[in-house]
Amino acid sequence: MLISESALRAFTQNIFLSMGCSDEHAALAADVLLLSDLSGIDSHGVARLVGYVRLWEKQRINAKPNITIVHETPTTATVDGDAGLGLVVAPFAMQLAIKKAELYGSGWVAVRNSNHFGIAGYHALMAVQKDMIGFAMTNASPLVSPTFSNERLLGTNPMCYAFPAGKYPPVVVDMATSAAANGKLEIAQRLGKQVPEGWIQDANGDFTTDPHALKTGGSLLPLGSDKEHGSHKGFGLGATVDILSAVLSGANYGPWVPPFVAFLEPPTDPVGLGIGHFVGAMRVDGFRPVDEFKSHLDNWVSRFKSSTTVDPDQKVIIPGEPELAAETDRRKNGIPLVDAVVNDLNGLAQKFGIKKL
Amino acid sequence: MLISESALRAFTQNIFLSMGCSDEHAALAADVLLLSDLSGIDSHGVARLVGYVRLWEKQRINAKPNITIVHETPTTATVDGDAGLGLVVAPFAMQLAIKKAELYGSGWVAVRNSNHFGIAGYHALMAVQKDMIGFAMTNASPLVSPTFSNERLLGTNPMCYAFPAGKYPPVVVDMATSAAANGKLEIAQRLGKQVPEGWIQDANGDFTTDPHALKTGGSLLPLGSDKEHGSHKGFGLGATVDILSAVLSGANYGPWVPPFVAFLEPPTDPVGLGIGHFVGAMRVDGFRPVDEFKSHLDNWVSRFKSSTTVDPDQKVIIPGEPELAAETDRRKNGIPLVDAVVNDLNGLAQKFGIKKL
Repeated sequence: MLISESALRAFTQNIFLSMGCSDEHAALAADVLLLSDLSGIDSHGVARLVGYVRLWEKQRINAKPNITIVHETPTTATVDGDAGLGLVVAPFAMQLAIKKAELYGSGWVAVRNSNHFGIAGYHALMAVQKDMIGFAMTNASPLVSPTFSNERLLGTNPMCYAFPAGKYPPVVVDMATSAAANGKLEIAQRLGKQVPEGWIQDANGDFTTDPHALKTGGSLLPLGSDKEHGSHKGFGLGATVDILSAVLSGANYGPWVPPFVAFLEPPTDPVGLGIGHFVGAMRVDGFRPVDEFKSHLDNWVSRFKSSTTVDPDQKVIIPGEPELAAETDRRKNGIPLVDAVVNDLNGLAQKFGIKKL
Repeated sequence: MLISESALRAFTQNIFLSMGCSDEHAALAADVLLLSDLSGIDSHGVARLVGYVRLWEKQRINAKPNITIVHETPTTATVDGDAGLGLVVAPFAMQLAIKKAELYGSGWVAVRNSNHFGIAGYHALMAVQKDMIGFAMTNASPLVSPTFSNERLLGTNPMCYAFPAGKYPPVVVDMATSAAANGKLEIAQRLGKQVPEGWIQDANGDFTTDPHALKTGGSLLPLGSDKEHGSHKGFGLGATVDILSAVLSGANYGPWVPPFVAFLEPPTDPVGLGIGHFVGAMRVDGFRPVDEFKSHLDNWVSRFKSSTTVDPDQKVIIPGEPELAAETDRRKNGIPLVDAVVNDLNGLAQKFGIKKL
């Protein structure tokens, strides 16, 4: 099914309104999900709606959060999301970081007591719109084993850095710190395909190509896949995200992070509140004039885009380019939804008594 | 040869003094190199001295730099290193970041016109000593190809994040953003050994296990090794380091970064000044009380250290642990130097008319 941006946006907003979100929060949460679907990151868009609703039904997501600043200096703060949707809590935190950066050059906000925040890129790009460099990261429910371990102790813990360019679109590095994001596994599961060696290990810690191995005690591997290829670096990056997002904010970390799925209960011995994020903004003109930075970033992009490649038909991809190409296409031609997602969404429509897709 | 910390420190300081460094700079530069040798990162310690001297002889390193702040807000700054040793320029920048963090919660400094800064961990740990979170990164001469390319466009561009713990030592994530650091290649070359597939490619873009392949047009691969295993993420991280360190500061970036070796000339069409760094410090108590943070980070370390492993004899390694173990051992038992390094150092002693090792 191919659906227009505006129709999917209206539908999504309606679901959030039905959960009891304010008009403002419903519009914002829908905006975050829509950017994901528009950008071709289908795993983080409206496909997540049914999961959010289930967590809300279990009272693990609060549709009417009172988001507060619990600690603050001129350029740092900790925000408590009151168990709200990460989709609205993270933008609140980023707005605060941007305000601090406007006054003092930079702003950094750690977030506790939140939930899944969609794509990190959305939040980082809020800063880019103000000619700032944006940072966004979040921890997530544990699926990844540290190097040498077969326990699931870290989430896929994405980190995002976004930079404003001039004639080119922003450079957006938005990446899970695991070898492969969980969404890629889900695609292989749906298609009945094997996955490459180096993405996952089974319960014994052996590489496996079975995308269902996580259901039998397997785990995702950190970026680098094994020690010899630098998986301790992927582990280090995942650890960095966990510490900045949760140890710093007072959220749950490591194996204590509550699961994103409603059928798994959160640990009974939490070490903090909800899941954690960390966002930041730095004014480009805190370092050099914006025009100078943008013209050099354009030069950087131009040089890398035009570099020699092994296969002349496969150019170097600038971080953020594929997502923008998808966005341009889907804004014009509509967003494709697979049947399973359409069925889930229509099930929600029925539950809330709103118009189906 | 096994040499005591104090003897190697005195020798190193003497070399820097012989180059014309001030007493203060000679002591600081020696301190940075010594921490590397003590920590077992032999590729970044005194083994680099001969290279620094050669660059100084070619007037590409200025032993008497006038390091200046060229742009500033309350929490951001750009520093010009006046072509000085990165070993003294980066600590200047980090001191400034710490001062800003003391006043406003966080401080961020981009550096241009610098040189090789030793191990990133040294600089990040300066912040940790003040109960701050430390960040340090640098770009470097181009050896790494972006995903799909066979051109060398990025350095091994390390990034470091360091966090103060309580009963445990600091957690220090200090990593090249390539699959393997260049130092590991040099070790294989010295030992006449092959390297694992996934570290380097030959001039045609094919994986090779020949550690000498860089001399015949080969290149290092980004962390992740190939697209299927996430090398676009390693490329994205290397790009992030390049942009923060150089596009933001006004240093050279990408293929324009001057080579670290004196026998290769810098590009004749520079896009900036020298190489670039980016350092930062955030006060932990800008987010939550220091004791709370440290006790939770201790809990984090403790949980990860005790996690189940595939091989019961191979525990999970906390980032920073191996370096600290080496430091403890070498402070007590001395620092091992290979013959090639001893010969290089004694050559320098002869050149400057100082006492040999």
